[in-house]
This record gives sequence, structure tokens and C-alpha cells, in this order.
Amino acid sequence: MTLDDHDRAGYAIALEQASLGAGEGGVPIGSSILENGVLLGAGRNRRVQNGDPTAHGEIDALRNAGRRASYAGTTLYSTLAPCAMCSGSIILFGIRRVVVGEEKNFPGELELLRSRGVEVVVIDDPKATALMEDFVAEHPGLWNEDIGVDEAPPAPAR
Amino acid sequence: MTLDDHDRAGYAIALEQASLGAGEGGVPIGSSILENGVLLGAGRNRRVQNGDPTAHGEIDALRNAGRRASYAGTTLYSTLAPCAMCSGSIILFGIRRVVVGEEKNFPGELELLRSRGVEVVVIDDPKATALMEDFVAEHPGLWNEDIGVDEAPPAPAR
Repeated sequence: MTLDDHDRAGYAIALEQASLGAGEGGVPIGSSILENGVLLGAGRNRRVQNGDPTAHGEIDALRNAGRRASYAGTTLYSTLAPCAMCSGSIILFGIRRVVVGEEKNFPGELELLRSRGVEVVVIDDPKATALMEDFVAEHPGLWNEDIGVDEAPPAPAR
Repeated sequence: MTLDDHDRAGYAIALEQASLGAGEGGVPIGSSILENGVLLGAGRNRRVQNGDPTAHGEIDALRNAGRRASYAGTTLYSTLAPCAMCSGSIILFGIRRVVVGEEKNFPGELELLRSRGVEVVVIDDPKATALMEDFVAEHPGLWNEDIGVDEAPPAPAR
């Protein structure tokens, strides 16, 4: 794993966003996008806060970064492995490097990212893992909703 | 191609959204999500209108549909083949059927969708094709921005 000072700053911002989300009662996943150490945008999962299923941390960070002609020199940081939607946004916009806090609570689509030429660095940060572990244990239904896991209703009595 | 009355209604809403977007000076791509013929949400690309790079038509429709525990019975309609981000959102949320207006102006990620078990129906609608063709011809830079195509600056004079 190769993290430089910019990476440590970018990841610290993502982790702070995750903590802010936890404090708001939201899904505690944070993200940031940096270019040569300059913060372009940060965000956090706002499903609960905004009632928006698409407001994953990475999407929120991209939204806050605003319009850009090119993302070629950017790195995206996320406290958790990016899902299919967020990985798709990374592929679409040509972000070439992604730094991920952890993949223990959710595997994400890291292989899809790698198959499209994105460099993926997994930090394996115990703080990020603990934050998600606590959340999933306390709010399993909300977590399943966020990652599209259908909780089939019990079969009707007959 | 198998379109029923619900499909025709869903696609008509998506196409109307695309036309609304064109009238606003936006990228003319529209989307809708229906479940058993009931409209859950509609949306259009709002990159220009909202300065939001993530506001593709499908993402906007999902946002407008709001939070749901399950998308298993839904169909998503889009006037254009969904990009990696929007295809990722379809995969994430477990939407099992997608009806696409056209794939001539942009191939999207239809193979990725099919490889994940999503049924993809391409209508090949000349109205949707003409709308995008005109837009791409008039605003090539904006279109490249929307699909993450880097327009490299000319080499510096020396």
C-alpha cells in the first residue's frame, strides 16, 4: 500500500465525513475527491438525511465537486468499498485511482474497477471497519436498503 | 421486442422528460421508473440545470422515486442506453428490467447489465435518436463532459 501525504489528507476527510454522517443518524460512509492534494469535493451518504437513495458518499462528493471537463488527475477516497453505482461513476468519469478504507463489511465492486483499469488501494483501516460494523449491527434493515438487498416479507400464513 | 401498455406509458414519460430537458438547454435524456404501471419517479439529465455531474436521467428518476425497500418489480425506462454509473445503480438496487430508447448515440453498458441478469429491451426509437443526434452535433463539448470523455488540450506551442 502506497499512501502519500495527499492520500492521508484525502482519507482523513472521507473518514470525518463518515463520522459526521453517523452523528446525523445516517449511513456512516464518507468520501472525498482530491487532485494534486487539492480538495475538489467531499460528501457522505445522505440516504436518511435527504431521503435520497442515490446519495451514497461517492455520489455526494462528485455532486459537491461540481462539473469538470476532466477527472484524469483525481483520486477518490471512500471509507468503504464502492458499490456498483459508485464504481460505475468512477468508471464513467475516468477517475483512475481509488483509495478505500475497508472492504470487510461490504465487498463492493473492486474487481469491476480493476478490470476497467482503475488503481484500487485498500487501506484496511480498523476505524472505518468498526464504524460500519456498529452501524450494520444496529440498523440491519437500513443497511440492506442502502445496498439493495431485498428483505423478502415472511410467507403469508395459510 | 415486447412492450405492453405499461411500457408504452413508461417510455412516453421518459421521452417527455428528455424533451423537457432539451427545452431547458440541458442534456436531453429522460427516464422513468414504474411498478405494475404505477409511476414511482421520473427524471431527466440535469447536469446543466443543477450543475450536478451525477444528475443523469436515471439517477434523477431514482432520486425522485425516493427510498424503497425493494425494486424487484420495477422497470426503468431511459431514452438512451444507461452509462456505467446508471447501469451500476440499476445493478445495485436490483432493478430487473430496463427499456432503452436507443443505443446509436451512446452504447452504454448494456452488456454489463445483461451479464448481471438484467433484462434489457432496446426500442430503437427514431425520435430519441434524433433528439440526441441534434444535441451531440450542437454541443459536442457538453456531451463529452457528460460521458467522461476527456478533451485533451492542444499541445502547447514551443
